[in-house]
Amino acid sequence: MTHRFILAAIIGLATALPAAAQFRNAEAAVKYRQSVMQVQSFHLGRIFAMANGRIPFDAKLAAEDAAILDTIDKLPFVAFIDGSDKAGNSSAKPEIWKERAKFDAAALRMQDDVAKLNAAAKTGNLDAIKIAAGAVGQSCKACHDSYQRE
Amino acid sequence: MTHRFILAAIIGLATALPAAAQFRNAEAAVKYRQSVMQVQSFHLGRIFAMANGRIPFDAKLAAEDAAILDTIDKLPFVAFIDGSDKAGNSSAKPEIWKERAKFDAAALRMQDDVAKLNAAAKTGNLDAIKIAAGAVGQSCKACHDSYQRE
Repeated sequence: MTHRFILAAIIGLATALPAAAQFRNAEAAVKYRQSVMQVQSFHLGRIFAMANGRIPFDAKLAAEDAAILDTIDKLPFVAFIDGSDKAGNSSAKPEIWKERAKFDAAALRMQDDVAKLNAAAKTGNLDAIKIAAGAVGQSCKACHDSYQRE
Repeated sequence: MTHRFILAAIIGLATALPAAAQFRNAEAAVKYRQSVMQVQSFHLGRIFAMANGRIPFDAKLAAEDAAILDTIDKLPFVAFIDGSDKAGNSSAKPEIWKERAKFDAAALRMQDDVAKLNAAAKTGNLDAIKIAAGAVGQSCKACHDSYQRE
């Protein structure tokens, strides 16, 4: 996606949105949620890299990463709109919509784990960060295992 | 990008990052900055849609959008790493690196405009939001016009 395309998309959004819609269409919702998850994966990945000793531990950077995760971790879920399981290049399983309450509960569990990671990162204690980041990784994995097509 | 791929990317990041690197490679940097801009475009676009009357004005939603923009507006710029002008599907012009101080100043101007939009959105005053959102749109456009390939 080029920046120019994004600007065009903004203009398109401003002229084409029906009254209550969050997204222009299912493809836009898929692109949005995948973009947020891409940003999440980077910041969680950097915390993992510090936890694993692959990059030096930088308490300030870890705290920034965790704060960003804590800010954006609710964003993907509004984008799992009806009809978006097969839109664009989505890998979402139809089970998301068949058992939405269970899916939403899994999202809340992840958000709770991210809040704990954010609290741990604020203390600057690497051992606490490792434990909290591991829990977040497990939350991510559990949901992807259940709700993502192969 | 599938979620599964993202998880694989996290694992890859955790095992392959050199000591000081922010990104595994230039392609990862391009994907990251484009993902952030995609999220920015959605939230700014929704504010524009409210400003234009295309969707009903919802002060709480506008404030959420502006707060998210204010949180993530610094993220893309660390990802304009050396050698990433032609990586992946980047449209970044080499001028970014030739006149980096000017590019960085343009980024700061946008961030300043977003901070003002966030302040305006907190007041819930639609006229103030319109003015502030217009300034952000101009900041985005100025930088894209200068630093994005056709």
